[in-house]
Amino acid sequence: MKFCSQCGTDNIRWEVPDGDNRPRHICGGCNEIHYQNPKIVVGCIPEWEDTVLLCRRAIEPRYGYWTLPAGFMENDETTSEAAERETLEEANARVELLGLYTVMNIPHTNQVYMMFRSRLLDLEFGPGTESLEVKLFREHEIPWRELAFPTIVHTLELYFEERRKAQFGVHLGDIVRESHRGVFIPRRQRD
Amino acid sequence: MKFCSQCGTDNIRWEVPDGDNRPRHICGGCNEIHYQNPKIVVGCIPEWEDTVLLCRRAIEPRYGYWTLPAGFMENDETTSEAAERETLEEANARVELLGLYTVMNIPHTNQVYMMFRSRLLDLEFGPGTESLEVKLFREHEIPWRELAFPTIVHTLELYFEERRKAQFGVHLGDIVRESHRGVFIPRRQRD
Repeated sequence: MKFCSQCGTDNIRWEVPDGDNRPRHICGGCNEIHYQNPKIVVGCIPEWEDTVLLCRRAIEPRYGYWTLPAGFMENDETTSEAAERETLEEANARVELLGLYTVMNIPHTNQVYMMFRSRLLDLEFGPGTESLEVKLFREHEIPWRELAFPTIVHTLELYFEERRKAQFGVHLGDIVRESHRGVFIPRRQRD
Repeated sequence: MKFCSQCGTDNIRWEVPDGDNRPRHICGGCNEIHYQNPKIVVGCIPEWEDTVLLCRRAIEPRYGYWTLPAGFMENDETTSEAAERETLEEANARVELLGLYTVMNIPHTNQVYMMFRSRLLDLEFGPGTESLEVKLFREHEIPWRELAFPTIVHTLELYFEERRKAQFGVHLGDIVRESHRGVFIPRRQRD
């Protein structure tokens, strides 16, 4: 932030406001405090029989890598609506959401991923403008080394593991950096 | 947004960018697109034996009303860290988180609430700067008509209902406005 979005001055300080405990962008002109908060990324695992649908990214970051349909949640929508919208935009696919599946914090990118399980309603899918290709994969066909993000790897790993048991939970955890990989640290539910 | 935070011009248009499908603040000077996204509010239900801890708000909105400790998630933290931090700031209370409990969308305020179940570690709590008073309540003592927000009402209703069964799920749903009340519409998990 270089200029105040309320008054236009470039007199912006990075300071702890009175009564607060962490630094913010504070305008020296109009005293507006500009807060910055994590963003929510929402998507789903569209399943069809024993396959799941993946999209190959036509945009950066991770151009050419495979991902589950997902994107930034917008104002004026719910997480469920966001998951359905992203699936339609990226894969021209219609899904019925089955339930919230993973909630993954990525503190170093200021994102929280929320992924749903879902069922494809038909096979009339195809690449949207942000995808090069959209395809169904059986478990042994998943291009594990060409997946775009750690959240996608770990969501799919949990999904296939639980699909074998035919019992799905809701998984909360954090993606932390370990050397060059993103590792998933689950937070277990307790009684 | 009246001025561009990147270049300082007041030439800001509210238009659909190329390749997008919804209006954004677009800078006519430097072409920066300024996205606005929902914020995450995180908190918890601190339990101690058959009571839960509530805080009476010392700030607007809803000054003087009772709430569970909760607040905006910050950059560089996880949802669990945010829940613990808010509980410490508002109630000077230390908790052990037990699990994610409710995820509630509020599309008309662009917020997603995420509430955890938790256990108070000791009774050395007291009001932080944003609270007038902090107190333990048994179920029949809960000031239902003086609770600050629909998310708090519905999270506590679910909690007491499930506490009787001694079985807690994870609940996703939306708070929608119905005349002057906020009503909770659950989205059920399916197989």
